[in-house]
Amino acid sequence: MSVSVKAVLIDLAGVLHTGDDALPGAVQALERLRASGLPLRFLTNTTRTPSTVLFAKLGRMGFKLQPAEIQTAALAARTLVHQRGLRPLWLVHPDIATEMGHSDPNPDVVVLGDMGHFTTYEALNRAFRLLMQGVPLLAMARNRYFQDPDGLSLDMGAFVTGLEYSAGVRAEITGKPARAFFQAALAELGVAASETVLIGDDLSADIGGAQAAGIQGWLVRTGKYRPGDEQHPEIKPDAIFDDFAAAVHCLLEAKTTG
Amino acid sequence: MSVSVKAVLIDLAGVLHTGDDALPGAVQALERLRASGLPLRFLTNTTRTPSTVLFAKLGRMGFKLQPAEIQTAALAARTLVHQRGLRPLWLVHPDIATEMGHSDPNPDVVVLGDMGHFTTYEALNRAFRLLMQGVPLLAMARNRYFQDPDGLSLDMGAFVTGLEYSAGVRAEITGKPARAFFQAALAELGVAASETVLIGDDLSADIGGAQAAGIQGWLVRTGKYRPGDEQHPEIKPDAIFDDFAAAVHCLLEAKTTG
Repeated sequence: MSVSVKAVLIDLAGVLHTGDDALPGAVQALERLRASGLPLRFLTNTTRTPSTVLFAKLGRMGFKLQPAEIQTAALAARTLVHQRGLRPLWLVHPDIATEMGHSDPNPDVVVLGDMGHFTTYEALNRAFRLLMQGVPLLAMARNRYFQDPDGLSLDMGAFVTGLEYSAGVRAEITGKPARAFFQAALAELGVAASETVLIGDDLSADIGGAQAAGIQGWLVRTGKYRPGDEQHPEIKPDAIFDDFAAAVHCLLEAKTTG
Repeated sequence: MSVSVKAVLIDLAGVLHTGDDALPGAVQALERLRASGLPLRFLTNTTRTPSTVLFAKLGRMGFKLQPAEIQTAALAARTLVHQRGLRPLWLVHPDIATEMGHSDPNPDVVVLGDMGHFTTYEALNRAFRLLMQGVPLLAMARNRYFQDPDGLSLDMGAFVTGLEYSAGVRAEITGKPARAFFQAALAELGVAASETVLIGDDLSADIGGAQAAGIQGWLVRTGKYRPGDEQHPEIKPDAIFDDFAAAVHCLLEAKTTG
């Protein structure tokens, strides 16, 4: 493997940790990567947790990073709503409601996050009725599932897809695999896509999304990874590693010997 | 129009009534249709109401029919589960839970109905986890939306589609537009598909389903009908009427003059 890597994008859940537990060797691997001087960004589609809480949680697990290094699908949605001057209806988990801000009583955009256990028929039907009136749908992510401590769990992609089907519309995604989400990270880091690697456990949102933006997609066999992922008909990871530590090891090897 | 009609299949919600109110002229039209002697079956995908309650409700509105004439997607699911000797997990509205029976603690099939306001993330995630283990998904319907008294509302098709997306599976539908559902009605009536007409307001489940089973599909402009329905790229109704009364009028005209 010969790569010229100038920056690394890292998915959080399933790569560095599962739930409240760091994955084996991940804390040390991040420290080695830091020592290499490569600029990093942490890209997450998790929209059940505000970025401040996410930052504190990662710190408690031993990961050393800065709040500004974390890029979330929820903050990307908030930025987009502000940039476009829209009046949002936020359908999000109560934990991130404050971070998102107030819903407008007369919304001109529906913004869907992962409401998780707070998902209700009433909220989805309110969204549906607005979509049927022509109000556009902004969704923070389209992930099929995520790794919970006790197994894979249903992610918000189910609700995005369901609303799209019933209302006959197509959502705009603000997090991964949206090209704009990756491009925002590249712009902040001042690097080209071709010089950047993403390490993730989600074949579609991480690997497929990164590759579509011209970024190398490295898959790890942790988190939501499942054996069948290697046989996907369309998405072929540029590299596959047992875990984050193995990916970092090869990255630094390649960097010094390449 | 020249038709040789030997039996009529009639959708309920949006054709005969909306909520608790009979649609204008529908009670009288059904009486005229009865007087013609044509055998009838009432086919509904509504799975929030047990058939006994549905029957009582229709009676209160003035419609004259027999319980055995009502064929519901929920009862079709129950029949199918029994015929195949399956151990079901019933994810249904509490109002039809008794009619469906007990869920098995170790299910080998997930049966999804319209849970409506009782939809929870927990229930959907339980279904998702079973689907990921290879347990098949039986869904009573795939309707996109239905006509509520105060507007169109999100129907269970959103949750079927969402689960299919996240679990990477395909549901088997027991109600309309499943061919078996229409064929069960034809078999009971002892008529051929080519001699039968279905009157419905749902372009996909009613008209598309009926036509795929070889039955004429007559669309009414009530209930969930929307002007764009006439321009659907694939589904072309055999006839379109302002309402059930107009459809019955033409049916009886055609029958006497044809």
